[in-house]
Amino acid sequence: MPAHPTSAGTGPLVSGGVIPPLCTPLTAERELDTASLESLCAFLLEAGVDGLFVNGSTGELAYHTDEVRLAALRVVRSVAAGSVPVLAGAVDLTTNRVIDQARAARAAGADAVVATVPFYSPTHPGEMADHFRAVREAVDLPLWAYDIPGNVQHKLPPQVVAELAAEGVLAGLKDSSGDLEGLRTLLELTEANGARGGGFTVLTGSETMADTALALGADGIVPGLGNVDPHGFLALHRAARHGGLKEAAAEQERLRRLFGLVRVGDPGRIGAYSSAIGAFKEALHQRGVIASPATPLPMRPLSVTERERVTGFLAEAGLGPV
Amino acid sequence: MPAHPTSAGTGPLVSGGVIPPLCTPLTAERELDTASLESLCAFLLEAGVDGLFVNGSTGELAYHTDEVRLAALRVVRSVAAGSVPVLAGAVDLTTNRVIDQARAARAAGADAVVATVPFYSPTHPGEMADHFRAVREAVDLPLWAYDIPGNVQHKLPPQVVAELAAEGVLAGLKDSSGDLEGLRTLLELTEANGARGGGFTVLTGSETMADTALALGADGIVPGLGNVDPHGFLALHRAARHGGLKEAAAEQERLRRLFGLVRVGDPGRIGAYSSAIGAFKEALHQRGVIASPATPLPMRPLSVTERERVTGFLAEAGLGPV
Amino acid sequence: MPAHPTSAGTGPLVSGGVIPPLCTPLTAERELDTASLESLCAFLLEAGVDGLFVNGSTGELAYHTDEVRLAALRVVRSVAAGSVPVLAGAVDLTTNRVIDQARAARAAGADAVVATVPFYSPTHPGEMADHFRAVREAVDLPLWAYDIPGNVQHKLPPQVVAELAAEGVLAGLKDSSGDLEGLRTLLELTEANGARGGGFTVLTGSETMADTALALGADGIVPGLGNVDPHGFLALHRAARHGGLKEAAAEQERLRRLFGLVRVGDPGRIGAYSSAIGAFKEALHQRGVIASPATPLPMRPLSVTERERVTGFLAEAGLGPV
Amino acid sequence: MPAHPTSAGTGPLVSGGVIPPLCTPLTAERELDTASLESLCAFLLEAGVDGLFVNGSTGELAYHTDEVRLAALRVVRSVAAGSVPVLAGAVDLTTNRVIDQARAARAAGADAVVATVPFYSPTHPGEMADHFRAVREAVDLPLWAYDIPGNVQHKLPPQVVAELAAEGVLAGLKDSSGDLEGLRTLLELTEANGARGGGFTVLTGSETMADTALALGADGIVPGLGNVDPHGFLALHRAARHGGLKEAAAEQERLRRLFGLVRVGDPGRIGAYSSAIGAFKEALHQRGVIASPATPLPMRPLSVTERERVTGFLAEAGLGPV
Repeated sequence: MPAHPTSAGTGPLVSGGVIPPLCTPLTAERELDTASLESLCAFLLEAGVDGLFVNGSTGELAYHTDEVRLAALRVVRSVAAGSVPVLAGAVDLTTNRVIDQARAARAAGADAVVATVPFYSPTHPGEMADHFRAVREAVDLPLWAYDIPGNVQHKLPPQVVAELAAEGVLAGLKDSSGDLEGLRTLLELTEANGARGGGFTVLTGSETMADTALALGADGIVPGLGNVDPHGFLALHRAARHGGLKEAAAEQERLRRLFGLVRVGDPGRIGAYSSAIGAFKEALHQRGVIASPATPLPMRPLSVTERERVTGFLAEAGLGPV
Repeated sequence: MPAHPTSAGTGPLVSGGVIPPLCTPLTAERELDTASLESLCAFLLEAGVDGLFVNGSTGELAYHTDEVRLAALRVVRSVAAGSVPVLAGAVDLTTNRVIDQARAARAAGADAVVATVPFYSPTHPGEMADHFRAVREAVDLPLWAYDIPGNVQHKLPPQVVAELAAEGVLAGLKDSSGDLEGLRTLLELTEANGARGGGFTVLTGSETMADTALALGADGIVPGLGNVDPHGFLALHRAARHGGLKEAAAEQERLRRLFGLVRVGDPGRIGAYSSAIGAFKEALHQRGVIASPATPLPMRPLSVTERERVTGFLAEAGLGPV
Repeated sequence: MPAHPTSAGTGPLVSGGVIPPLCTPLTAERELDTASLESLCAFLLEAGVDGLFVNGSTGELAYHTDEVRLAALRVVRSVAAGSVPVLAGAVDLTTNRVIDQARAARAAGADAVVATVPFYSPTHPGEMADHFRAVREAVDLPLWAYDIPGNVQHKLPPQVVAELAAEGVLAGLKDSSGDLEGLRTLLELTEANGARGGGFTVLTGSETMADTALALGADGIVPGLGNVDPHGFLALHRAARHGGLKEAAAEQERLRRLFGLVRVGDPGRIGAYSSAIGAFKEALHQRGVIASPATPLPMRPLSVTERERVTGFLAEAGLGPV
Repeated sequence: MPAHPTSAGTGPLVSGGVIPPLCTPLTAERELDTASLESLCAFLLEAGVDGLFVNGSTGELAYHTDEVRLAALRVVRSVAAGSVPVLAGAVDLTTNRVIDQARAARAAGADAVVATVPFYSPTHPGEMADHFRAVREAVDLPLWAYDIPGNVQHKLPPQVVAELAAEGVLAGLKDSSGDLEGLRTLLELTEANGARGGGFTVLTGSETMADTALALGADGIVPGLGNVDPHGFLALHRAARHGGLKEAAAEQERLRRLFGLVRVGDPGRIGAYSSAIGAFKEALHQRGVIASPATPLPMRPLSVTERERVTGFLAEAGLGPV
């Protein structure tokens, strides 16, 4: 029997906390490194995370084949073993493709799926809503909307999310938009229409403004940096939950400095995922959690200098081998 | 034996002309309508097109599952039967996923594949180049780069294309950027580095500035509107090829008016593909080429008023049942 | 003798609080309505505001000639009479033009000037810094940087602001970027380099996230909506200053609803200043503070329906005639 | 008596040709260098240009005070002495400020004024149209719309321009948008509504696609690079006018290479005007046309290396001292 409520249960599957979007460790040959993924999951579960999110953007969803995505999900599912819920990205271009992803994720043991608005082809808010309705109807799993306009070009309007929350189509939102004002609007709308009371859960994807998002009312955090320093985010979340705003802010400031990791890349690749995810993997490698910092094609590996910058960040943050 | 040169042959697979990006007809139940797709191919082949491009943006690549994409490709391949080359979109988020798409397309009979730069996750020019190199190395088919920054957020720099053309990685470019200055730069660069002389082929995706692109040196056109009026684009191309610039411009102006089709949608959906592709399919339906104007989820069908606007455009262009 | 410290004094000119960016009332003939501007200033001063900002974006700086800008400044200066500091926008395209604006503002009695980065012509961070250095050197008045990328296309990087703060070039920042993360970065940087300790003052231009900005460490608010409801923003600021975060949030939520005013415009003008500023002026008119809601060319006046929406917002917020 | 028709005359003031947007030469002390401006005008007039455009973007309109703008205009007016029309930029934020600029330009001898859409504050198409109507009504000079969305954030829609052309509000358009499709739409619309027949004149600001713009029907060119190489643009225009498309294209290609000048700046300033305008001025200085390459604050001067790149471009283009 699962230790967490299911979608058929009495409470929300995920009621908040810290749910890291897992890195996807690869071998030096760029194949899924199952042992390292298990090790990463164990590291995070021992730290006390509240859930695991596999095949998110930090998990290099854009880079891996369906086969690798599903293999990773099975590994995570197996390690989690019901101790915490497993959310799986079901990210693809548009409705029918997302449904295929969601069905496969369900079959591989996901407890919930996370999907973006349609992308590649231009759309509009009415079609965004129909998209989530169709996905939810096709796949019997709690569905999270994934608002990540920097990657999919379109902001998911709070009004659309609130409407879908009230309909029961969406179980929650993962907000990676960086738009705290939109987050607040959504919280107001879902408070007003009863969805919040009914268990609609709001997670922020921000590593750097997580305390603020929690102060505004968000339930939890899905921090890419949480792969590297789960204890930090758990401490931040605990402090925020118990009203220790200054304590939360202090922890947030430490994590903001550590987040400088994403900018270890030389100027030519600043902004590219090969800098940010490359640094997360390098940090996990240096901490002894995963065997190799390898990233998938066409990401170029970090140079020696870039790797040394990672070492510097870890030292400054007091993060040694685990 | 194919009537057109292959990648192993002596000339380029596609040396220009008109290669419509096929609409993907659906039944009223939103399933692939094989008979209508055959009818559409036959209509275009009888008109005299120089190739067929399946699973392009106009073909709703973002909306269809792998299964539907491949089924459509097999139908097209079967109708073409070697009479003209069949190019297939292999569009997915990043390298490994594109390789999967390209392999499947090759197995289903594509003569060439067309792929965009990585999208969803931020990248940089060096990684764009590595992406195409990896795809070409993995799949032994001529590879076209598909420059469509409006859909994938990133412009493919002419310098990168030229470099890949010189390396033999790219067989050609489908330019759907609308950036005529970039097109000219690419033509200059590939002229200078010898790639043009070696058969590197440049196709414009513009319906409305095709004559200008041809005058600048492009070899051919991949016009979504060419589904509806292939004869118009063939006349335009013929005129342009034989120096009849005024004649080409006159035909272009007629086609520019007809292109107003993409704006038949009510204000709420202007810019969405449900207006543009909905109108192309409605026009094909009204001309008797396909059985239903159905579009995939989550596109909303055209209203009666919007459909009447399509009728008006066809009437003005003198396009009746075929 | 002024009741507030001057730039030559011992403390900062403005140490925080609520400093409304004044609307610029016009007569029905679209000329400066001096009496209404006096009335507006009196209304705000009686409410207890901590400063007045004239010729900001809400003051329609883009719409008024130098003559009107300076006339408005003189009126405000005269009503303020040293009771609170008067900040004046010195907004123009680039350095030499800004210096002209700043000199004229100084001559007309401004206590400080507020200037944006260069706009119209593309620039870069090093030139942004030189721009503020040159303005400060040319005009002996405290200088505020005005970060408003939505209007001038360029974000003023926190690193540049922090550097100029440490040099003593900037006395403060008015942050109208909506970028709370950037605000936090600036606060961290200016804390670290000693500028905050030296009196560098950070004001947020946000009407809707002011409590959050204050919680992050901002000193004060410059809310356009503060023309209409200064008491609300003063209450919010008081609560935030004394640790009443929930009280501040409650007031903020009320003000967020009232801010719906900026969207009273029909769809065609949503986003245009004629909706937002038109609504502020209409509200001030309905509250009896100014004689006419007239806006300058080429803004089109609100329709009867749009004006009725303003009435509705005021009623909901409990704001009657003053 | 002027040699060219006036607005009260029988033909358009400017019927096409090459009208360079003048650089504004400064002394080493960054003051207007009247002698060099006279020399530049003489150089261009001897080359045979069809008009002079002062205080355009290339003329650093954003950087100069009203005083310098008007002084430059008076010098140009004096050298032109009626031999060719003098167009003057009247660029400022919004209507009333533009009217002030236009009145001053008229008083200083401009034959026509050139104004952008309102900027800084968001607007909409109806207000854009009213803006030009108000400017034209206030100042009795032919009015050119200046479409430069890269600098003012908003594209001036062809539909608005066509409407204003038909009303007689606009005498012409200077298109610096780079949007050739929009240019074509405008030409179609103004052909259809009779404005073209009535003398409405369309000028392209493109240095690099001028031949294409002329082939599409534009009347003339306003090339910043025309300061450096007026003979090249005059040759291009002549060839295009007499149907020598290949000859025009060959000249265009030479000029496209020379336009690499705007990228002489080191990476940090690529895209900034200090690279582009700095290079034009350096080139004019090296050709002996102006005394100093000085640029206004806050532009940083070219380094020795950057200046040597200019020398290289001039050598490659065969442009020596004049």
